[in-house]
Amino acid sequence: MSPAGTVVLDLTQDVAFLTAALMDIESVSANERAIADAVEVALRALPHLEVTRNGDSIVARTSLGRDERVILAGHLDTVPLPTTPGSRGTVPSSWDGEVLYGRGATDMKGGVAVQLALAATLTEPTKDVTFIFYDHEEVAAVKSGLGRLVRENRELLDADFGILLEPTNGTVEGGCNGTIRFEATTRGKAAHSARAWMGENAIHAAAPILARLASYEPATINVDGLDYRESLNAVKVHGGTAGNVIPDLCVVEINYRFAPDKTPDQAEAHVRELLEGFEMVRTDFSAGARPGLNAPAAASFVAAVGREPLPKYGWTDVARLSEMGIPAVNFGPGDALLAHSDNEHVHADAIRECLAALRRWLA
Amino acid sequence: MSPAGTVVLDLTQDVAFLTAALMDIESVSANERAIADAVEVALRALPHLEVTRNGDSIVARTSLGRDERVILAGHLDTVPLPTTPGSRGTVPSSWDGEVLYGRGATDMKGGVAVQLALAATLTEPTKDVTFIFYDHEEVAAVKSGLGRLVRENRELLDADFGILLEPTNGTVEGGCNGTIRFEATTRGKAAHSARAWMGENAIHAAAPILARLASYEPATINVDGLDYRESLNAVKVHGGTAGNVIPDLCVVEINYRFAPDKTPDQAEAHVRELLEGFEMVRTDFSAGARPGLNAPAAASFVAAVGREPLPKYGWTDVARLSEMGIPAVNFGPGDALLAHSDNEHVHADAIRECLAALRRWLA
Repeated sequence: MSPAGTVVLDLTQDVAFLTAALMDIESVSANERAIADAVEVALRALPHLEVTRNGDSIVARTSLGRDERVILAGHLDTVPLPTTPGSRGTVPSSWDGEVLYGRGATDMKGGVAVQLALAATLTEPTKDVTFIFYDHEEVAAVKSGLGRLVRENRELLDADFGILLEPTNGTVEGGCNGTIRFEATTRGKAAHSARAWMGENAIHAAAPILARLASYEPATINVDGLDYRESLNAVKVHGGTAGNVIPDLCVVEINYRFAPDKTPDQAEAHVRELLEGFEMVRTDFSAGARPGLNAPAAASFVAAVGREPLPKYGWTDVARLSEMGIPAVNFGPGDALLAHSDNEHVHADAIRECLAALRRWLA
Repeated sequence: MSPAGTVVLDLTQDVAFLTAALMDIESVSANERAIADAVEVALRALPHLEVTRNGDSIVARTSLGRDERVILAGHLDTVPLPTTPGSRGTVPSSWDGEVLYGRGATDMKGGVAVQLALAATLTEPTKDVTFIFYDHEEVAAVKSGLGRLVRENRELLDADFGILLEPTNGTVEGGCNGTIRFEATTRGKAAHSARAWMGENAIHAAAPILARLASYEPATINVDGLDYRESLNAVKVHGGTAGNVIPDLCVVEINYRFAPDKTPDQAEAHVRELLEGFEMVRTDFSAGARPGLNAPAAASFVAAVGREPLPKYGWTDVARLSEMGIPAVNFGPGDALLAHSDNEHVHADAIRECLAALRRWLA
């Protein structure tokens, strides 16, 4: 049964063209219904899969009684379309030779196309596979479709290993750094700047915070064989109210990206030690994820890909799988540095090679 | 000829009550017409004065052929009314015993009342007197009614000495500090904070600016016998665009209040030397004014007041008189620290004593 108006996807066409077809269904976060409908209809046509829909997320599972089960996961949504006139990273997609331009080209319609191509063509994989397509990845974590599945359909998500098809340029990227944010606040006493000695300058009081951050040497930490480069930065600062008033408040917003050898609490302790003596509030955090390469399934997967694994720096949903006790890595077509850009694009061969590597491993 | 609706002022009543009557005419900058009309009508009734009106500024002069001529000047406008409910520093005024509350109580309806009382009652002063009442003091310098008089009625403003009746708690305050503002800018390179090493942090780059300002020891400089206390402050800072982006720009706004031994150019050179190596733009400045106490008229005036003169820290229009070659001081009722506050008030006796001191000197 195909709802009226649902886009019909041919999952057996060239995976790069399938990517373009997915990109042409605009699916900015909160507007995933159309693409979720198209994906659901296409998957329900495949008799070897059990399909479950929850909101605009879809889970499709093989049940072949294999020894191992792996998750292949990707999000259906994109960030908003570019606002710069003439940007090519928009909807609909466009081809320039073998390069595919448009919103979602790297993040991550190519990965989703690879998932769908595998779902359609790999009827007898060597491991049971759970395909997950989910909504609301590019917005606040509380809205995540994957988070909702974890809460409401946990029984569908058991697995020995997970692959998230986020763009990694076709290399296995293991785990991810954690991220934690603080606001460090200095307080003073307002006064007219003509009589500055009657006040206390909160911006001057923030000088040591910036100095300690500027001279901090971030570590590179080896976790399960991969080197995680950390960073610690002031990302925003604001203080002062008027040109003739001694400022009574200055707030420095700080972001620490920490290696997955630490919990968020340990990361917090580290920053608090560095900025001892300053008023500091933790405003946000996400745990990192260990690379998961010591899982048995991971070793054979890395071998099938045939490239040296790298650490992942950006936070991804592998952390969410990791929290569930499922070792997980990132592996997908396209350059993560192009994600969200006005110039988002991917080479057709990158998508085809990603599909080929996964097929080698699972066939 | 009294324009219909003009408030009739009795200039011979107790000067504190006259102050209240002036305060009850709301005269926030740009709305000085009603008070200027009332002042003009009252002054035109005095046959010993020549009265000139220019916009909402009024000049009234004796012409007795005295050896010396002094200016008594004050502005008619106030800052906006308080917005905090229940504030007493508003319009109309109110009495609490001998204390008069309301907008303009200290800045500077008391001083204007003293001017008007002297204008009305001192028909044969020992020095010729030029009374100046002007508009738009509390806003951008280009709008100043006194500046307009200097440009358009310069011939009315010749004098040997000037007294500005800004609040000084009844003490002669000489000259004023100059003020100069800069924006110091640091630039970096934006990058995702997960890959901070691909960017350069502009906020971190501003650390030495804040550190140099924080450790700067401002001087106190003796000018013509008065000690001027300087100050140098970051008054605002802002940098960064988002919690996950390495900031590519940070701007520190700096205010230097410098003693009147320096020109603005010398003050600028001093700050540029301190912050050498940083991109800096001068955004605003006003020259200071030397105290003017070495003028012959000043000495007799200080003796009549009978208190040790003090330096003035805030910038006032004595700098404008000083630029015209007229030595000038501040002398008026009320506490300058209450000016612009929600709690603006003045003691009736402060106004009466100010009037008495000027009468002693001029009668």
